[in-house]
Amino acid sequence: MSGTASSFAAQLTAWQSRTERELARRLPSPDHSPQRLHAAMRYAVLGGGKRVRPVLTYATGTALGLPLESLDGAACAVEFIHAYSLAHDDLPAMDDDDLRRGQPTCHKAFDEATAILAGDALQVLAFEGLAKDPTLPKDPAIRLRLIEILSHCSGTQGMAGGQALDLAAEGRDASLAEVTQMHIWKTGALIRASVTMAAACVPALSPKLAADLEKFADAIGLAFQIQDDLLDIEGDPKLLGKKVGADEALAKPTYPAVAGMDAARVRVRELHTEALSHLQDLGPRAQPLRDVSEWLVFRRQ
Amino acid sequence: MSGTASSFAAQLTAWQSRTERELARRLPSPDHSPQRLHAAMRYAVLGGGKRVRPVLTYATGTALGLPLESLDGAACAVEFIHAYSLAHDDLPAMDDDDLRRGQPTCHKAFDEATAILAGDALQVLAFEGLAKDPTLPKDPAIRLRLIEILSHCSGTQGMAGGQALDLAAEGRDASLAEVTQMHIWKTGALIRASVTMAAACVPALSPKLAADLEKFADAIGLAFQIQDDLLDIEGDPKLLGKKVGADEALAKPTYPAVAGMDAARVRVRELHTEALSHLQDLGPRAQPLRDVSEWLVFRRQ
Repeated sequence: MSGTASSFAAQLTAWQSRTERELARRLPSPDHSPQRLHAAMRYAVLGGGKRVRPVLTYATGTALGLPLESLDGAACAVEFIHAYSLAHDDLPAMDDDDLRRGQPTCHKAFDEATAILAGDALQVLAFEGLAKDPTLPKDPAIRLRLIEILSHCSGTQGMAGGQALDLAAEGRDASLAEVTQMHIWKTGALIRASVTMAAACVPALSPKLAADLEKFADAIGLAFQIQDDLLDIEGDPKLLGKKVGADEALAKPTYPAVAGMDAARVRVRELHTEALSHLQDLGPRAQPLRDVSEWLVFRRQ
Repeated sequence: MSGTASSFAAQLTAWQSRTERELARRLPSPDHSPQRLHAAMRYAVLGGGKRVRPVLTYATGTALGLPLESLDGAACAVEFIHAYSLAHDDLPAMDDDDLRRGQPTCHKAFDEATAILAGDALQVLAFEGLAKDPTLPKDPAIRLRLIEILSHCSGTQGMAGGQALDLAAEGRDASLAEVTQMHIWKTGALIRASVTMAAACVPALSPKLAADLEKFADAIGLAFQIQDDLLDIEGDPKLLGKKVGADEALAKPTYPAVAGMDAARVRVRELHTEALSHLQDLGPRAQPLRDVSEWLVFRRQ
């Protein structure tokens, strides 16, 4: 491992540990009523995961010269939204998954009603945090902009819309355009929010740089999702902590299933290159975002 | 009907129609993708209901001299939260209800996955609306305060927490204190939000009047819930648009089930009187709130 790669590995671990600590601080205590709901919320959020979205928020903020402390509220908010979506997507009425990161899913560890409620309460915690978190910029206009970004990216023209397209695609042939749109909404929108929320904390940011960061996020978000689907088909189940079945995975409406494995691998590389091209104006300051991009597209888990 | 009662009836109808129109305007079109999700969201929200929460927002705002136009965003946001909670509470894993207002519940009219997603997307629409709605006060600090109020009242120390207590109480004897706490969170919190969001749109409001309105909301919110439970036991199923079964209703953890019917009726009257007592400083301006209170505690549906 080169010196740079090893220092990025340390930085990544530091961002992930920070995320874990800050999430735990913001989740309500399981000792307070309603205890079971609080316990389910903590279960759905804590205990690992790559923390891709908070890492992107910290990396973008670092590239823009922001202190990590000012990013904790946004990083946690986007992860609360992601965690709620997993708790709901895993439900029997949705994807009906029993395992997540090698552990029982929220409705298996608790029960369906509690998993639904925990997801609902995590969503509201995300927005309550952006409104109230003492570590975020004090300016109410900035906080309002963060809420605008995260709400738009979580709604029907974002994450929830992507899940709806995913449900609609089940059991029928989807076109590559449909699958791409589904990925852009279902995963891409929150990746975009992770990057643009950090950018929105810099009021003096040039519109050109803000637009570049959005394009970077959209490219790396789609690359990340296609890579995720490739790993579901050909990855190592021990590393992934979940079942990997080529047949089952290929039956789902994903980019590799529709375009083929080779075309999907090529597309990941193209999108990676495109993402990096949007970082040129940032110059050497873009290094954290380049490192995170490489991690996202070359990871094995 | 006296002149006053008849003019309140007209005002109530006007507020309810306004709510219906403003909700419809803010819901995404079923002609746009994802169509089925948008259709389910509209189904879960539109088509009737008493619109108690928006009515309270309009009544409070009217008492404080605010134009109705400036209240539409808050009125719709609280109703979106209420509608999402109904779509989720009706699910098989929760209360498993097939009918709501005489119509199939959202998961019966669509499917469970779509009903879960529609609820999720309605919750985010509430917060997106408060952040972006052009009719709300421009001041970002006021909007942020509205988001603080609605998020707190929807979370684990509010509506979601109340539903968790309701689930926890099933199949065991709950004390009157536990049932009261459940009501205060499950129903009371959103009633409080309906009133305090309107109050928060008046930056110059005296702290005494703001506190009085909170106390008014808490008293009338609990009275409303107890009256609702009384109607579930002894009401007219044709008027209510849902099954009424005394045995079944008395088995649920509600105030009348735990304290008895007579004690519950007395408590509604006491809370009504208490609620009105907190409106004294408003003088004659409080008439819309007095009228709404009377409607809430004397209604038969």
